[in-house]
Amino acid sequence: MIIINVIDTGGRVLDKIRIGIIGYGNLGKSAEIGIGQNPDMELIGVFTRRSPDTISLQTESGKVYHIDDAKKMRDKIDVMILCGGSKSDLPEQGPEIAHFFNTVDGYDTHAQIPEYFAKMDKVSKSSNKVSVISSGWDPGMFSLNRLFGEVVLPEGQGYTFWGKGISQGHSDAVRRVQGVLDGRQYTIPMEEAINKVRSGEVPILSNSEKHLRECYVVAEEGADLKRIEKEIKNMPDYFADYNTVVHFVSKEELEANHGGMAHGGFVIHSGTTGMNNEHKQLIEYSIKLGSNPDFTAHVLLAYARAAYRLYKEGKYGAKTVLDIAPAYLSMKSVEELRASLL
Amino acid sequence: MIIINVIDTGGRVLDKIRIGIIGYGNLGKSAEIGIGQNPDMELIGVFTRRSPDTISLQTESGKVYHIDDAKKMRDKIDVMILCGGSKSDLPEQGPEIAHFFNTVDGYDTHAQIPEYFAKMDKVSKSSNKVSVISSGWDPGMFSLNRLFGEVVLPEGQGYTFWGKGISQGHSDAVRRVQGVLDGRQYTIPMEEAINKVRSGEVPILSNSEKHLRECYVVAEEGADLKRIEKEIKNMPDYFADYNTVVHFVSKEELEANHGGMAHGGFVIHSGTTGMNNEHKQLIEYSIKLGSNPDFTAHVLLAYARAAYRLYKEGKYGAKTVLDIAPAYLSMKSVEELRASLL
Repeated sequence: MIIINVIDTGGRVLDKIRIGIIGYGNLGKSAEIGIGQNPDMELIGVFTRRSPDTISLQTESGKVYHIDDAKKMRDKIDVMILCGGSKSDLPEQGPEIAHFFNTVDGYDTHAQIPEYFAKMDKVSKSSNKVSVISSGWDPGMFSLNRLFGEVVLPEGQGYTFWGKGISQGHSDAVRRVQGVLDGRQYTIPMEEAINKVRSGEVPILSNSEKHLRECYVVAEEGADLKRIEKEIKNMPDYFADYNTVVHFVSKEELEANHGGMAHGGFVIHSGTTGMNNEHKQLIEYSIKLGSNPDFTAHVLLAYARAAYRLYKEGKYGAKTVLDIAPAYLSMKSVEELRASLL
Repeated sequence: MIIINVIDTGGRVLDKIRIGIIGYGNLGKSAEIGIGQNPDMELIGVFTRRSPDTISLQTESGKVYHIDDAKKMRDKIDVMILCGGSKSDLPEQGPEIAHFFNTVDGYDTHAQIPEYFAKMDKVSKSSNKVSVISSGWDPGMFSLNRLFGEVVLPEGQGYTFWGKGISQGHSDAVRRVQGVLDGRQYTIPMEEAINKVRSGEVPILSNSEKHLRECYVVAEEGADLKRIEKEIKNMPDYFADYNTVVHFVSKEELEANHGGMAHGGFVIHSGTTGMNNEHKQLIEYSIKLGSNPDFTAHVLLAYARAAYRLYKEGKYGAKTVLDIAPAYLSMKSVEELRASLL
């Protein structure tokens, strides 16, 4: 085995951060590849509930283990990237793994974040570890930009737009409709609404004015397409409050044209300053992603670096992106950051 | 005097942060007004080198004092906002004031930031205070976005564009040319270059490909306009490497049309992810400012809040935006931030 020391511009040898990945779906696969872009990290292992010999990794680094063997590796891994889903995996796995490891996850069930935070905080404080929760882009980078917007322009209004991209939760909802074999749902931000906000107006926008929902559906042979369309469009919480468009397509077309991972979004904060609020001020943060899971994984990796450093400093407990000083995210020393980025 | 307690959503009474402003130019005036948008802050005084009775404030709050009286008020002010210039005011005032007060400034002589940081750090550590340096938008919010870009997309390239807006340093340079009575210089980002970067290309851009420099010049009567134009266009460092346009205008036109405070800019990070770098990823942060000094002042005020809290926690010394966890910037409790922004 060749050991490559990572040396910063000050000649300091950096510890390689030993990474484990739990869960080997899209996000786990992206994390595996993303590690290769971070020369201060190395992949030790991927942990799965499946039988390890049914999985082959995409890179030469790391091995596949059964998830039950994770706790035996507590001396070999510095940070575990939790790549399971927020619905059923993370609420269970998060606290379990945080007993033994520093963790980073992208827990995104917005309404339950305070509860999840409390649980993870309790465990990681008792195990003297650091758990970064709800990292990624939303929650994550978008949350940061909502915060920066409201602190810099207190008299103002923030707007978040998502897309164009496939929403996993809404696609799942489409697939639960009787007679549907497969389906994907695109969330599409409404250009007109974005332009209104960008113009410095501070409009009140309903859900249906902010986003369009476009569904591509593969129906069972002989299914009542009118009924399926109606059921989707009237589904409470998911579609009823939106303009929804439903297209019926063949299985082949769905797979060929709607399997992409592209996504994106905007956080816009529109405010006013001055004695009589006479000055319009606009902040816009936007992302345009060729691969949603790759981008999310890269954010998690940057926060894995932060988790490792906070752990080294003894700052145990759960954290979110809001609690972490940005310099912790970088391989570079603070001196180098000050000289090159300020 | 009416004391208004600021109460957060948890029913907690917040301390009002007592603010002092040093220097009453554009930035100081914007800071005075900006305090009114931050209900957890109050203005105690504005400190000036001029005779205090020649200055009247725009608001009802606070009093005007001579700068020499500042140190007598060390028990009455929590944070001083330093609103002097980076060229001659801050290098001298910063360390002097940091002996007695927590400070926030927008020191922006990029090449000398490490040196200024070291000086401020030494003083504020010895006086048990906090000094936030180089806050504002560039350095400041733009620095943060350059950092977030490079940590999330390590295989990528960051680009900063400024404008359209008046650059103070370049306007000063124009005014130093013989025969020039007055002048303003707009820095204008090149749409073509921005679009190239936005398209996901990773171009190498020279200075002249990124920005155009447009000058509005009032010349002395009978001055040789051709010579003035040539001298401006050939001025090393400032104009020689750029496409520069020079317009001669009357004093009246300059004052009527080119006294505005609008500004803006973009930080774009273009990167690739995936096993073969097959996915393009783009992050863009942009601001469109009706008033540059207002926006800068609002950023300084948010960091004044952070300085005060770090001081309360005993985390003395100099800091930059890179060193400060974003939650410190908000009036809201971390619980409220987690519930509302993540």
